[in-house]
Parts: sequence; structure tokens; C-alpha cells
Amino acid sequence: MFRNFKLVPNVIFGRGCFEQLDEIIKKQRKNDDSWVVFVTDDVFQDKPLEKRLPLHDNDMLLWVNVDDEPKTQYVDELTLEVKAARSTLPCDVIGIGGGSSMDLAKSISLMLTNEGSSTLYQGWDLIKNPAVCHMAVPTLSGTGAEVSRTAVLTGPEKKLGLNSDYTVFDQVVLDPELILDVPKDQHFYTGMDCYIHCIESLEGTYLNEFSKSYGEKALDL
Amino acid sequence: MFRNFKLVPNVIFGRGCFEQLDEIIKKQRKNDDSWVVFVTDDVFQDKPLEKRLPLHDNDMLLWVNVDDEPKTQYVDELTLEVKAARSTLPCDVIGIGGGSSMDLAKSISLMLTNEGSSTLYQGWDLIKNPAVCHMAVPTLSGTGAEVSRTAVLTGPEKKLGLNSDYTVFDQVVLDPELILDVPKDQHFYTGMDCYIHCIESLEGTYLNEFSKSYGEKALDL
Repeated sequence: MFRNFKLVPNVIFGRGCFEQLDEIIKKQRKNDDSWVVFVTDDVFQDKPLEKRLPLHDNDMLLWVNVDDEPKTQYVDELTLEVKAARSTLPCDVIGIGGGSSMDLAKSISLMLTNEGSSTLYQGWDLIKNPAVCHMAVPTLSGTGAEVSRTAVLTGPEKKLGLNSDYTVFDQVVLDPELILDVPKDQHFYTGMDCYIHCIESLEGTYLNEFSKSYGEKALDL
Repeated sequence: MFRNFKLVPNVIFGRGCFEQLDEIIKKQRKNDDSWVVFVTDDVFQDKPLEKRLPLHDNDMLLWVNVDDEPKTQYVDELTLEVKAARSTLPCDVIGIGGGSSMDLAKSISLMLTNEGSSTLYQGWDLIKNPAVCHMAVPTLSGTGAEVSRTAVLTGPEKKLGLNSDYTVFDQVVLDPELILDVPKDQHFYTGMDCYIHCIESLEGTYLNEFSKSYGEKALDL
């Protein structure tokens, strides 16, 4: 039995491509009352990035605090907050920040369409329904959250991810400009390394040849 | 403006993974009357592969002849044949063969949901509606058809592809066993090369670093 890999189906990469986020989201705004949740690391509050978020009138800016690793209780609270905000589900959930912010965005998008607490879905392929469309804008490299099929959560009983093909982002926006301010030892090109970790951790087939080639290239850069 | 790349979202790779095709298709068979079209290169008629096709009672085995490059008229005829076969559209179109067979499968899946002749859609992003779910089982490597966003067709006026994000396959099944019989100068690992051609031909950004790394690895193998 070989593993059928679910990959991120849409990737945009380039210095300044964050400017295209509004246009990318537009395809999801199918009705007049369509709305988008921007799950954003609260370190960006009152920072230039806040003003650059392509918020429309009906959208929701959801600041998240990731001083601690994401907890199931926090996910459940945030999901309730999103559900309570409008009479419809959002058409898109955007995660903006590092690994924890992206994992929170993934978790919220999943919990909007899967009933009960997120603790019920910690494990392998327990998620029953596809998530709301969700996209990632990483501002920190090397986390791998933008390409992985899990969203790591700490629960009352266990620290375990919502691990599912549905967890994978529908779109990733990779803009090197957004990570200019991170410490020097966190190079953007370790982002390529994520692909290795992601794929190698899943299976030891020839697919590793793909991932190894990324690794070799990452070392070159 | 950077290009937003549409990638094949599901990939399975491994010696003998063709055996898992039935299970992979199963997810598309949502109703009792769901049916699948197997667009298959007619060189496999009466060959062992024919018996291995996971055909269900209601499915359609559509042999295609690719002695010549695919023509718009041929696509239109095949599409009509599929439409006429049942009262509903198929839930999945599987392309089995080399580049031409895969391009025919792509074209049929697109023309089932886009009205009129395929000549109307030869060009860049002229396709209006998403295709029927379509999957590729390449039996020949190096064509690139399994990962590209085009389906090259020769029409009465021009030779030009149905070039669209909707053209990209939803699933690719890469089984090295299926291509054991091709001439020795067509190595499977040139399959990796396809990724390069596909991506490099589209844009000259850093994404080329991904594709170059595939190329370097392909040379190693």
C-alpha cells in the first residue's frame, strides 16, 4: 500500500506577491454576503502589515495570541467566536503568521464544519467533513505548517494534531518580503526544507528522491 | 504580478500502486448511478493491462487511437459519445496511456462541462467551467502531460492547447511497473524532468530553484 499524497494545490511565490492576496481571495467571494476571516498573529497589531490586510467591509480580523502553543480549548473558543459573528460560515479562513497562527487557521477552518470539540479530532484521519477554504500567508519560515497535513494542538489529555488530508491548505502565499524582520538565523530558504520534513516523515518511497533534491538545493542557496 | 501555480493536488507513486486505482476512484462514486470513463490508449487492447482496469458494471471503457496527435474534431466526437452513453455525466474521467491519451482525457473532462466545440477553447484561460474530476495513469514518461495545465489539440485553424487551471489533473497515479515495456531510451525518471519543463516554461522566478533541483536529481538517478 502506497500513500496517496495530498499536496497544496495552489502556490504563489515572489517578492511582494502579498499584494495579490485580495485578488486571490476574490474567487472565494461568490455571494454578496460572503466574508473572510483573517486569523492573524497579534504581534502584527499596530504594525504596517495590519493596514495591508485586504479586509472588506464584512470581513473579520481575528487576532490570535500564540505566546503559548495552540490549545484545543483556544481553538474551540475562536471557532465559537467566528460562528457567532455572522449567520453564515465564512467563505475563506486566512492564516497569517508563524506555525502556530497557521495551525490555528487550519483548526478553525476544520472545526467550522466538524461538530463538537477539537479534542474529538486529535489523531489520524478523524476529521469527517472538508474544511472551509483556508489559505496560509507564512511570516516565518521553517515551520512547515504551510505544507503539512496536520495542525498540532495541545489538549487536556494529549498533544496531538488534527491530521487529515482536509487539513492541507488550499492556497499558500509565499512572500519573502513578509519575513524580512525575523532573526537572521531563520532564513527563508529553510522553507524549502519544510517540504522535505513533510514528505519524508510520511513515507520511505522514491518520493524521498523528490524531497532530497529539495534538501540539496536548500543547502546550496 | 506573480503567477499563482495550480499543482496536481493528489499524487500516488510506487511500484504496483496501479492496484490502488479502484480505491482511489471510489471516493468519486458518490451515488449508485455514478460512473467512470476510462480513456485508454488502444495499444492496450487485448493486453494484460485491459484486464487490470478496475471497471465497474456501469463504467465505460473508451479506447482511443493516438496514431496521430489529438485533433479538436476527435475530442468533440469522443465527448459526444460519452454524453450520449448515459443520462448523467461521469463522475470521473481516467486517462491511461501516453501524452496524447492523457491530453484526450483532459480535453473530454473539460468539454463535458463547457458547451460547444473544443476549437472555442484553444488558448489561454478560455475554459469557463471546472472540468469533471479527471485522473492520469501515465504509461509513458517524459511527456509532462500528467502535470501540465494544457491539453494540446490540433484544430482546423490552429494547433493550440486548452490551457487553463481547470485542465490540471485532480490525481496522478505513477506506477513504474506500467512503463516497463517502453523503449529503453525513455526512462521513467525523466518523469521528474516534466516538472521542470512544466514550471520553467511558465515563469522565471525563484520557483525555478525548485524545478532545477528536480532536474539535478533526475540527472543523478
